[in-house]
Amino acid sequence: MTRAMPGVRQTPVSPPVNLTSREHRSESTVVQVGPASFGGRRVTVIAGPCSVENRAQTLETALAVKAVGAGMIRGGAFKPRTSPYSFQGLEEEGLCYLAEVREATGLPIVTEAMDYRQVELVEKYADMIQIGARNMQNYTLLRDVGRLRRPVLLKRGPGATVQELLLAAEYILAEGNTQVLLCERGIRGFDTATRYTLDLSAVPLLKQLTHLPVIVDPSHATGNWTLVGPMARAALAAGADGLIIEVHPQPDRALSDGAQQLTPDHFAGLMDELRLVAAAVGRAL
Amino acid sequence: MTRAMPGVRQTPVSPPVNLTSREHRSESTVVQVGPASFGGRRVTVIAGPCSVENRAQTLETALAVKAVGAGMIRGGAFKPRTSPYSFQGLEEEGLCYLAEVREATGLPIVTEAMDYRQVELVEKYADMIQIGARNMQNYTLLRDVGRLRRPVLLKRGPGATVQELLLAAEYILAEGNTQVLLCERGIRGFDTATRYTLDLSAVPLLKQLTHLPVIVDPSHATGNWTLVGPMARAALAAGADGLIIEVHPQPDRALSDGAQQLTPDHFAGLMDELRLVAAAVGRAL
Amino acid sequence: MTRAMPGVRQTPVSPPVNLTSREHRSESTVVQVGPASFGGRRVTVIAGPCSVENRAQTLETALAVKAVGAGMIRGGAFKPRTSPYSFQGLEEEGLCYLAEVREATGLPIVTEAMDYRQVELVEKYADMIQIGARNMQNYTLLRDVGRLRRPVLLKRGPGATVQELLLAAEYILAEGNTQVLLCERGIRGFDTATRYTLDLSAVPLLKQLTHLPVIVDPSHATGNWTLVGPMARAALAAGADGLIIEVHPQPDRALSDGAQQLTPDHFAGLMDELRLVAAAVGRAL
Amino acid sequence: MTRAMPGVRQTPVSPPVNLTSREHRSESTVVQVGPASFGGRRVTVIAGPCSVENRAQTLETALAVKAVGAGMIRGGAFKPRTSPYSFQGLEEEGLCYLAEVREATGLPIVTEAMDYRQVELVEKYADMIQIGARNMQNYTLLRDVGRLRRPVLLKRGPGATVQELLLAAEYILAEGNTQVLLCERGIRGFDTATRYTLDLSAVPLLKQLTHLPVIVDPSHATGNWTLVGPMARAALAAGADGLIIEVHPQPDRALSDGAQQLTPDHFAGLMDELRLVAAAVGRAL
Repeated sequence: MTRAMPGVRQTPVSPPVNLTSREHRSESTVVQVGPASFGGRRVTVIAGPCSVENRAQTLETALAVKAVGAGMIRGGAFKPRTSPYSFQGLEEEGLCYLAEVREATGLPIVTEAMDYRQVELVEKYADMIQIGARNMQNYTLLRDVGRLRRPVLLKRGPGATVQELLLAAEYILAEGNTQVLLCERGIRGFDTATRYTLDLSAVPLLKQLTHLPVIVDPSHATGNWTLVGPMARAALAAGADGLIIEVHPQPDRALSDGAQQLTPDHFAGLMDELRLVAAAVGRAL
Repeated sequence: MTRAMPGVRQTPVSPPVNLTSREHRSESTVVQVGPASFGGRRVTVIAGPCSVENRAQTLETALAVKAVGAGMIRGGAFKPRTSPYSFQGLEEEGLCYLAEVREATGLPIVTEAMDYRQVELVEKYADMIQIGARNMQNYTLLRDVGRLRRPVLLKRGPGATVQELLLAAEYILAEGNTQVLLCERGIRGFDTATRYTLDLSAVPLLKQLTHLPVIVDPSHATGNWTLVGPMARAALAAGADGLIIEVHPQPDRALSDGAQQLTPDHFAGLMDELRLVAAAVGRAL
Repeated sequence: MTRAMPGVRQTPVSPPVNLTSREHRSESTVVQVGPASFGGRRVTVIAGPCSVENRAQTLETALAVKAVGAGMIRGGAFKPRTSPYSFQGLEEEGLCYLAEVREATGLPIVTEAMDYRQVELVEKYADMIQIGARNMQNYTLLRDVGRLRRPVLLKRGPGATVQELLLAAEYILAEGNTQVLLCERGIRGFDTATRYTLDLSAVPLLKQLTHLPVIVDPSHATGNWTLVGPMARAALAAGADGLIIEVHPQPDRALSDGAQQLTPDHFAGLMDELRLVAAAVGRAL
Repeated sequence: MTRAMPGVRQTPVSPPVNLTSREHRSESTVVQVGPASFGGRRVTVIAGPCSVENRAQTLETALAVKAVGAGMIRGGAFKPRTSPYSFQGLEEEGLCYLAEVREATGLPIVTEAMDYRQVELVEKYADMIQIGARNMQNYTLLRDVGRLRRPVLLKRGPGATVQELLLAAEYILAEGNTQVLLCERGIRGFDTATRYTLDLSAVPLLKQLTHLPVIVDPSHATGNWTLVGPMARAALAAGADGLIIEVHPQPDRALSDGAQQLTPDHFAGLMDELRLVAAAVGRAL
């Protein structure tokens, strides 16, 4: 990955309509990541632990979620934590474990990169690069991944409007990368009964406005594992093209976000429910 | 309905746990309104126009929504409008039309009362009394309907937390009326892409916290008829016990909230979709 | 106070411009309440306890705040409490104590009425009637006080926009009562570090849009007495026409909202600070 | 500036209390930037255009704001714009103009860097480096500037709590850089009457919680130049240690954010007002 030095950057020429819009492209974009796809009839569930903590935990989780139908594995190696004193991720060691998981399961991997130095590293290991909610408007990072030819999972910032999410994606598309998957993961609201307010209306709205696929992260949105199942079902019923769900063999011992992670057993039960809901709205899982 | 004069009111004695809580009553309350019920296996769709505008429009809408499975009819006779210069409703004339609709369809009627004087009137005509979102914390009104033995539809205020909604319901139950149906109808959020932010996570959360049934109003929440269908499906998938949906024969000519009202045809199509989603989550419609 | 029965109400005829607007009346309205005034060069501080708890507490507080320059006394007799099991106020007994306080201090009194039955009672005792934040969109109540010839203190609802506040005031003016004082008291926000988010920008914005005077309630907004002083100073610097501040002789023993009430000593110190800030922006206190 | 490669990073050891807290350091930190200081008795106003557009505009603005008492110059060379098709800044050319402005005025310069590569460049030209609101939780960038010995202006993200702002600053302090200036610049709220909701209560709250100085940006918060003056006055009255205000010779022709920029004349008038308010709260300007 090379990049022109600052100082020679130019504002991209604005197209007649934004590249993310249905006006630009009426047909839905299907983002293909190895055997997994987003945006077609089939919905895909990405699952895995919040953080990659060690080889055993990562592999055990991946095999468990694969066994019940997950189509892709998630796991954090670089963790954007609110406090500098919280566990920050295993970094490259974590990426190696994710690569082993891919070998063992045959499933593609998504993990987050927080800046361009991490992008260089993540690109070597992961099938899809996640831009986290906190970096949704990190425009130089958006451009960096826009120059890759690797699918990008772009999460909505908790303080960002739907329009701002689309314009963030526009930064990526304007650099040439059209393989962008949008993710609603909860926005700031006044009620602290849930961690964030899951804005599910954004799903059908985005599906009207853009050809890009849209998935939902009920784990971060609710911060409460007992709400993950109902909101995952609701997301599919609302038209989401996929889900990203946190699963941990022992949530109570997780190094991050234990309260929102499902056990493999709960996840298995949820997958059964999701198959029924997907079918009810004309989709397959 | 009689009420003690101010000056002799006493703060109710607090029960060991709140009357609305699952701790107080673990079994789900089923609110029965004539043939319609909320809180059991069956989900009920309430439908009808935002405002009762005239006899023909009300009756036409009611017959159309009944024909495709609506279980109850809604229609506003007293309209809480943001501006004093907007159409304020037909008042008692509107209530008369609603009574005719009940005769013609056999379906129960719900309509809003905004104060004590209107409660006396609405009680004569309607099967369920709605306390609107703007009056969710009108505590004297809550007590007034708490002394009735008529089911109450209590809508969440757009600036109210889930906890505040439950405590508003507590005012009604503390007066002896346990037939209360809660309704999520969108809360204030920063994104103006939708009218309000539909807080669907509140549905499973409320179902955990309270034995009272919970329905969802996707029409007011989104303010956009194209989003009503997806969010109605999502609400059932999240576990809602029912829906309240606005339908108008000619939304473009509606005296209030035209943009969010479905045509009878769209409503018919939606009911087919909702039957499938309800079945997928083990419910019937 | 007489009121037409429901059924004969008619939507008021819309004036060319709203009655609350500067277009309708460019000159600032001065709301005069006995010796106190709002909207002229002089700013007025309303002070007193959150709730009227007993004669001694009310009188002691009133005399203390008068001694250091408060221009009007507040105190709640009918208390809109989130829980039905919280102290609900002394009701008419509390109004009697407020009347005694007026006798003893010569200062006018403001207290809240939550419905029209309370309005009839409050009107007998108080110089200004408060419509609380929870009732800002209780339109029948707004009309009731619109037919009085008694000044009204209208508090902004925590989920209400500036535009909705103005339209709520419009309900009162449309009935003929032009003596309306608006109050910003904090809105819903996502940060729980303060109870509400004090929207001080609403003050200069309202002063541009309307001729009605605007005051600020830093006590309810912050819910934290240590922030009341700085935000009271800020409110005057932003152009507020007055303040309403809660003071209690022993905040730790208050029956409601102790955490946000100042002691008389702190209030005295604050009044000294406020005089300096008022002078710095060309006002007097 | 060197940085360890990803893979060898370690979570910093948590101190007994956070480095930003008053418990860690009770005395207020004074951030000194050349002749300008923040956190002592004197308040400092930073002023300048939103974007550096050309040499003449930048110099003209700087001389004008210096003449009436601004203590520091701002101007954007790298602009984080919501749309990729908006003007993105002059980049290094803009930094050169800012350096000329420093020569011509003797005032220190602050400008934004959006990533590590820009930090290297900005560090050569600017006296203080701004981390913008969209990058408040860009943790690798926070660490990058934490390793510098250059003052940092850290703006609160529009979706960030006060606690999250403090923890973002903690990332910088944990790397050894204690010269951090916090800035409240408006948060997401539901009322679109202003661009953001200026959370002025955060100012006294932050002053209690942290020893770091706190300034306010009324320009971005309100997005409306007619509100900048009142909110600037309010910020000082609430205890802010400084202000950052946008000024443009011809706001109507500005390449970014024209609606919120003051003319030099309005700025001059505002400085006179601010001197009076500062004096009223025991500060000097």
